[in-house]
Parts: sequence; C-alpha cells; structure tokens
Amino acid sequence: MKKNVLIVYAHPEPTSLTCSFLDVAVQTLRRCDRGVMLSDLYGMRWKAVFDEHDFPSRANPDRLNFIAESAHAYSTRRQTADVESEQEKLLAADALILQFPLWWFGMPAILKGWVDRVFAYGLAYGYKGEGNRHRYGDGGLKGKRAMLSVMVGGPARDYSPRGINGPLEELLFPITHGTLFFSGMDVLPTHAVYGSGRITAAGVEAAKADWCARLERLFEDAPIPFRRQNGGDYPDGQVLADRVAAGQTGLPAHISEERGAPVR
Amino acid sequence: MKKNVLIVYAHPEPTSLTCSFLDVAVQTLRRCDRGVMLSDLYGMRWKAVFDEHDFPSRANPDRLNFIAESAHAYSTRRQTADVESEQEKLLAADALILQFPLWWFGMPAILKGWVDRVFAYGLAYGYKGEGNRHRYGDGGLKGKRAMLSVMVGGPARDYSPRGINGPLEELLFPITHGTLFFSGMDVLPTHAVYGSGRITAAGVEAAKADWCARLERLFEDAPIPFRRQNGGDYPDGQVLADRVAAGQTGLPAHISEERGAPVR
Repeated sequence: MKKNVLIVYAHPEPTSLTCSFLDVAVQTLRRCDRGVMLSDLYGMRWKAVFDEHDFPSRANPDRLNFIAESAHAYSTRRQTADVESEQEKLLAADALILQFPLWWFGMPAILKGWVDRVFAYGLAYGYKGEGNRHRYGDGGLKGKRAMLSVMVGGPARDYSPRGINGPLEELLFPITHGTLFFSGMDVLPTHAVYGSGRITAAGVEAAKADWCARLERLFEDAPIPFRRQNGGDYPDGQVLADRVAAGQTGLPAHISEERGAPVR
Repeated sequence: MKKNVLIVYAHPEPTSLTCSFLDVAVQTLRRCDRGVMLSDLYGMRWKAVFDEHDFPSRANPDRLNFIAESAHAYSTRRQTADVESEQEKLLAADALILQFPLWWFGMPAILKGWVDRVFAYGLAYGYKGEGNRHRYGDGGLKGKRAMLSVMVGGPARDYSPRGINGPLEELLFPITHGTLFFSGMDVLPTHAVYGSGRITAAGVEAAKADWCARLERLFEDAPIPFRRQNGGDYPDGQVLADRVAAGQTGLPAHISEERGAPVR
C-alpha cells in the first residue's frame, strides 16, 4: 500500500535553505511513490498560541484547564477546524517530518504551537483516557515514523560530543523522545545541516543529496532505539530497572545500547 | 540600589496554579523591596510568531534572512514597538523569571515566541556584532540573573536521575544553558512544582512557601555553575579541553563539578 508522509514546514522565506529542503523532500518522496501532505505553517498563518479559542465548547466555562479541555474537545469532536484538519493528516500519515530552522536550540514558536495545539489529550498523550499508561513507544501515534530535519546556523563542532552547545540529539531530546516517541512514533536520527548560514553552493548541493538519500530510506532506516515504557526496562513505568543502563543517569540512559547505531 | 525583576508569565487562566505563583512572586519581591515588572504574555496578546512583520524596515526586502534582519533592526532601532518595550524591560532588570507550565517538555509557544522575537542579534546573540565571540557567560545580558519557575504535570519520580522523562534540568538545558546563559545571564537552578494537576490544598500552600523562600534568595543563591566559554575550559571557544570533565560527553559536561551544589 502507498505510504503517506506529512511534512510540517516552518519557515516563511521561499528562497531559504529550509524551503529548498522542503522542495527536495516533496520531489524525492513523490519519486518514491509516497503520498505527500504538507502543512506550511507560515503559509497557512497557523495560530501558534494555545488558548481558550481552542475550546469552542468548554467542559468548564469558568476555569480553563488545558488538559481537561483538550480531553473534552478531542473526545467529543469539538475542536477547532484547523486542529482537526492537522490531526486528520497526522492520522493518515505513515511518517511525519518536521522541517525547521533551529532557533534557540528548539523549534520556532509557530511549530511549537503546532505541537501544543494538535497533540491532544486522547491522541498524543492520555491515550484511551488512561493517563500515562500508554506512552513512550505506545499510544495514539504508534506505528508511524517521525524525523526532524533541522537547519543549524552554528558549526558541527559546537554540537560534537564535547562541543559547547551540547550534542544536537540531546538538545532535541524533548522533541524526539518527549514528544514524538512519547506519542508512540518510531523516531529516526535527526537530519541536520550545520553552518547553514555560510554554506557554499557546492555545500548546498551535497546537503541536498544527503537529504535525498535519507528520504529514500525513510521507511528502512533503524529508528533511535529509545527504550519503550512497557517493554520491561521500566518495571513501574517510571524509573529504569537497576539492571538497565546500570549506573547511568540522564538522557542517554533512555537509549538502548543493544540495537541499531549509536545516536551521537 | 533597588534591584529590578522582570517576570514573564505564560498562562491565560487567573485561577491557575501558575497564576497563583505569579501572585506570590509579585508580593514577595515587593516585600523584599524589589522593583517588579511583569510581561503577562496572554494578557498582552503577545504575537508569538517571528516573521516578516518583525522587520518594518528591511535590510533586504527581497529575501528574509532572520539573523541579518534581526541585526539590522536592532542596530538601527527599527524594531516593532512591542519587541523594543520588552527589551527595555529586560535591560532594566537585574533578574528575569520565566513562569510557565511545562508543555511537551518545553515552553508554551507564546513564551518561545517571546524569546524568538526579543532575543535579538546584537543583544542576546552576536553581541557587539562579533558572531560567537561573546556567549555562554558573556554577552549583552551579562550581570543579570535568571530563573525558570515551572509547573510540571507529571510526578517528580518521572524526572528523577533515572526517571523515564529524563531529569528536568537536562530537558530544560536548551533554555537555561542555550538561551539564558548563552546571552550572559547567571542562571539559578530551576524551581519546579511536580504533579501540579493533582496537588492538594495543603500541597499548594507548601509549594507557595517554597517558592517564596526561593524568591527571597533570588540575589543570593548560587547559580548553576555552567562553564564560561571564555573562562579557559574551551580553548578554541568550541570544544572542552581534554583536561576538563575528562572522558565525559553530553550536557552535564558543561557544568563545573568544582563550584556550588550539584544540579541534578
């Protein structure tokens, strides 16, 4: 069956490197016979701010509790049309690509607001209304793949294992692990272009070729081997078992050493 | 001299726990004879999206390059009035407090958009127009303090050193280290309230008392001992010297073991 890919794109400038990567993605995926859906957030004038207008029919009109209202709006299908449309695309997708420039080591606000608003309770968290029971490798988006494609202004050296910014994959952990894997998706290693502000024409061509190759393997490459909440490594669903990543603390402890390629 | 504190607050609900923490902060700081400035982002209807409207007088009207336009707008004082006003508050502040609920392990979009738009080239990065020369403990916001005050829905156990979400201070590293310390500020350990959705009335009172005590020590507590770029630990300004945090990689390597309390 034809695989579908949703690209969420967060840059307003048609001549930007980010936009040229979007073009490469659309062309490559079509050539690979994928269905391509696009959410051009700047072009759509996406509403970034998650607020009371997201809940046209409130469970409690007197007090805005985002989790309670998200659960109510999602389960009773009383969301706004823009959010519902994005969720439909996401549910129709076999893979999600977030294409953005790294701003302050994270997503531009417009893209963070896409996550804040679209990743509803009952879908991306609180799956089946069961709180934290289904998360990290389980949940409403299970079976889908996800990948970040990031334009990074600074040089790769600053993001190396001992680089001053910290390793890119650790800086992006709140997105790859905490958002995409949390919701059940298999997350591929991030595709990054470093030094994007000073790249040469030849560098752009080489970067496009690399990106093209990643896209061709979108459904073949091994995902980051994040540990699944319900796979045995977290006996109480909260903390690593003593025998797992023994003696380790921090973010890398949640990546299995046993499967796939190292992430850094 | 009287110290000034800017609180940037990102929640729309006046009966929320986040808002009650804002009230505690305003009262406590005034009692301590601090000048208090407030940016109530939802109340101000803060524009979250960083876009072409941020640059009313473009350096290059044909192609939107955010870094180039930010540099041009900041240096020639051609920014929008809302951004200029926030920068004036920030420059008048001796300390910055960001008060927000943790959404997908990061800031709500409206607050990310405050950073994206207010932290201009020439002020918070590219200080003195010298690229990466002045960053991480140096730069336009040097001499100021900063602290995150975060409402966390999940339990503390999930954020413990081996907890499934990862340690909170590592998840927030892109903000504490990559944004606030990057710009020159001394960043205090994050103040977090866990399990904020299920907290009891007694829990709220205890949490408010803890918060009050943190605020009273705002100008006394030791900051997170992040390593300064120009302090000798990064001989080339990019990568740790071999002798520093020998054998370590990842985010914790950028925190000195020698000074202050451990961060996790």
